[in-house]
Amino acid sequence: MNVTIRGKTQHYRTVAFDADRNAVLLIEQRLLPHEFKIVPTRDFRETALAIKDMVVRGAGAIGATAAYGLAQGARAFRSSDPKKFATHVETVFQTLKDARPTAVDPVNAMLGVRQIMASGESVEEQQALALAAAEEFANQDARHCAEIGEHGAKLIRNGMKVLTHCNAGWLAFVDVGSATAPMYAAQAQGKKFHVFCDETRPRSQGATLTAWELAQQKISHQIIADNAAGHLMQRGEIDLVIVGSDRTLGRTGEVANKIGTYTKAVLAARHKIPFYVAIPLSTIDWTLKSGFDIPIEERHEHEVLGAWGVPRNPKLETRNPKPGKSVYVRVANPTSGARNPGFDVTPAELITGIITPAGIFKPKDLWPRRRELGFAP
Amino acid sequence: MNVTIRGKTQHYRTVAFDADRNAVLLIEQRLLPHEFKIVPTRDFRETALAIKDMVVRGAGAIGATAAYGLAQGARAFRSSDPKKFATHVETVFQTLKDARPTAVDPVNAMLGVRQIMASGESVEEQQALALAAAEEFANQDARHCAEIGEHGAKLIRNGMKVLTHCNAGWLAFVDVGSATAPMYAAQAQGKKFHVFCDETRPRSQGATLTAWELAQQKISHQIIADNAAGHLMQRGEIDLVIVGSDRTLGRTGEVANKIGTYTKAVLAARHKIPFYVAIPLSTIDWTLKSGFDIPIEERHEHEVLGAWGVPRNPKLETRNPKPGKSVYVRVANPTSGARNPGFDVTPAELITGIITPAGIFKPKDLWPRRRELGFAP
Repeated sequence: MNVTIRGKTQHYRTVAFDADRNAVLLIEQRLLPHEFKIVPTRDFRETALAIKDMVVRGAGAIGATAAYGLAQGARAFRSSDPKKFATHVETVFQTLKDARPTAVDPVNAMLGVRQIMASGESVEEQQALALAAAEEFANQDARHCAEIGEHGAKLIRNGMKVLTHCNAGWLAFVDVGSATAPMYAAQAQGKKFHVFCDETRPRSQGATLTAWELAQQKISHQIIADNAAGHLMQRGEIDLVIVGSDRTLGRTGEVANKIGTYTKAVLAARHKIPFYVAIPLSTIDWTLKSGFDIPIEERHEHEVLGAWGVPRNPKLETRNPKPGKSVYVRVANPTSGARNPGFDVTPAELITGIITPAGIFKPKDLWPRRRELGFAP
Repeated sequence: MNVTIRGKTQHYRTVAFDADRNAVLLIEQRLLPHEFKIVPTRDFRETALAIKDMVVRGAGAIGATAAYGLAQGARAFRSSDPKKFATHVETVFQTLKDARPTAVDPVNAMLGVRQIMASGESVEEQQALALAAAEEFANQDARHCAEIGEHGAKLIRNGMKVLTHCNAGWLAFVDVGSATAPMYAAQAQGKKFHVFCDETRPRSQGATLTAWELAQQKISHQIIADNAAGHLMQRGEIDLVIVGSDRTLGRTGEVANKIGTYTKAVLAARHKIPFYVAIPLSTIDWTLKSGFDIPIEERHEHEVLGAWGVPRNPKLETRNPKPGKSVYVRVANPTSGARNPGFDVTPAELITGIITPAGIFKPKDLWPRRRELGFAP
């Protein structure tokens, strides 16, 4: 999407590739929203480190990074011995896989690249195929997000107030995003609307990443405390909720997403406000039979006990676009501990619809219509 | 309640009076939870400033501070001329009232003190009566909270997990607190239970003040993000919710309290978890006929856009009881703004009961039983 730096607006992807330098180009997401910087990784080990250290995060984005990383590693091979090349590619694959061992996207993306490489005969041919396959993976991710946007934009009418939670934006994908895709598409259609971004404690992805994205795209928005949505719904100030999903159960229509999503769905149901989940097809889990079987990661308590930000004078500098260095501050009582579940599960009955690249589905229709959604066991 | 400083445990009130020095003694709440300090105010103007600058906050606590401040001002008068004394007392009253112009507690507390002073004849006698009346106001506040505790403790059974929101603890009153009173009473009865403190963004009173109180009282507790309660309820990990209230409508049973309270009530109702509100009788508003008539304060956006805390290494120092200086950090995207409603309104249908010093009432019973609750127009 567009980013404006010192008055100059340019289109960026979260992940791109510089073939001349054989470098993966990443938006350094750990500096956002306080600084925008593109970092090139010079070899596949640096690319793996960038995944591990969360320079890049989000399902689609790390999938594309791993795909490019595999191509980058393959292209760095300096011999024509196919056996040695195969061994080398295996090392690259494992290194990138180990960077985020529980994530499925990098593995799936790299398996796709490897499959296409296999049709090449010479080392050189396989190297070229690897890059082409990685580019196609990234393009497909962006295309699927754009399709989510096309379907979802129909839900946004002029004058609406839309709530979103966490960051299911373009920073989590190669471009466009999932929950934000309908907003960007509606904006392109000339619709005027306002977005409330849940802060999304404890990591504040809504206040940092989603708000940054919407500000860059010049979409009218305000950040709210996670506590405020109930009150705004009660006073008729929210018309539509769109969130993303980390895992959607194809058999039940249940949605696992960032902690707090379930609460927003319960509130939306009480106030009869449509609640939509926007997802690429790759996040549908066709195996699990119950949301209670989804393991809920318990994250480190320091996330809840403090916050990351740039020291400022709160009254004088509430709008200060100057770059600054983020520090961690301990907010909570120093002798108390915390519970920190990272995700929650929203049952199908609370979800109005699931926006996919293939159209909008009722959650209970995912399973009966699984063939349309690409599940062909 | 008890506070342990360098291994020594001592009982403190939030507000007390040193008659020899004619000083109001206040816990400096702006330093909590990172440092515990008692500050004496040397004259009524300093006391007014302490109310204005939030050294002390909470309905009962600022009521008692104003009552003591009035006595302090009266006692500082150095003449026996009753007319000049009356003028002086009026100045003291106005100064303390103007410190927090929208709060009703300081005014009500001071009117009570003035009424009792009126029965004195000499200046000296009125000065003595002022102090006695202020002491009685503070004692009564503590007694009422203890009565809330007695009634509310019956709701807490061994092994329960109790959720609370914001700080309706002893720091908001003279002692004991409202929502915390049942917990302290249950602990005194030897019951074992666990408390989840909602962080309560944007001001984090749960993570700072309530967690500090519970840690000092050695009550098992953990802080959670405001986003986490829904998930914990869904997994059966919360048995009871107790919160405080800023204003309770006697005619409808609606409760205005810190932003996010309504959300917890909606979640509790969905999960059939009892939801109680603990209040002293002084917070009942017998006039308003609808919760929609309660003005909801829109607070400054910098509260939502950042956080206050002590810079620390997040991984090495999660339990660091050393005092530290709190700073403000900008968390959110620097070019985004925020909405910041400070309170919300919970309808009677979501409230299981209202715990008062006079017993536990169904919200719909407040009005029919208003005489028991001291409303006699």
